[in-house]
Amino acid sequence: MATIFTKIINREIPAEIIAEDDNYIAFLDIMPLVKGHVLVVPKQEIDYIFDLDDTTLSGLNVFAKKVAQAIDKTIKCTRVGVAVIGLEVPHVHIHLVPLRTMDDINFTRPKLKLSKEELAEIGETIRKGF
Amino acid sequence: MATIFTKIINREIPAEIIAEDDNYIAFLDIMPLVKGHVLVVPKQEIDYIFDLDDTTLSGLNVFAKKVAQAIDKTIKCTRVGVAVIGLEVPHVHIHLVPLRTMDDINFTRPKLKLSKEELAEIGETIRKGF
Repeated sequence: MATIFTKIINREIPAEIIAEDDNYIAFLDIMPLVKGHVLVVPKQEIDYIFDLDDTTLSGLNVFAKKVAQAIDKTIKCTRVGVAVIGLEVPHVHIHLVPLRTMDDINFTRPKLKLSKEELAEIGETIRKGF
Repeated sequence: MATIFTKIINREIPAEIIAEDDNYIAFLDIMPLVKGHVLVVPKQEIDYIFDLDDTTLSGLNVFAKKVAQAIDKTIKCTRVGVAVIGLEVPHVHIHLVPLRTMDDINFTRPKLKLSKEELAEIGETIRKGF
């Protein structure tokens, strides 16, 4: 069965898409730790990041860098933090999290609940950073 | 002034080194979240991961993959998680953290205190995974 991320890639379920190319996609996490929390995903449906071949792994990180630079330009933060955990959705995803403190990237704390309108506004803001 | 990681690279201060090549090094975090927590560092002294050029960023991640695969083989875990925070030491470092639960990669919780002997033993174990 297709993962939720594959459904986003195939436009079967909506997401606030930030950037996309032939191999990768970035969209807002709908349960963000902070405003501007983005997921970067390879279109290839692989569960574990260290099972990606070297070329796909490299391309994913270079793509994530471009997204992080757009976040840095548009979202108030000290820098963009990175996390790959992958205990939930079985499809590789890099979390890009605008950081001010260490606790901003603590996945055990409660997530923000943002409206569709708030997410759309954040998406619009970050897309201007490219 | 050289960062603490450059001093490790130059063998000016000791560390439990797991792997090394011309451009990258991996060693045990001396304040680990869990046993087998490794730092992967480019020898180039740059503060922010997204300031690395694409080639160095790609090479760093491919090097980290090899280290993660060695951790997966030798340390009991569900998978290896990744975090890049960088609010402390101003020299890029990828945390590789053997995960069982989300809380294993929560940087706000107290770190383990391991003896030099315990670190040496973990280092020895992971090096066997290559």
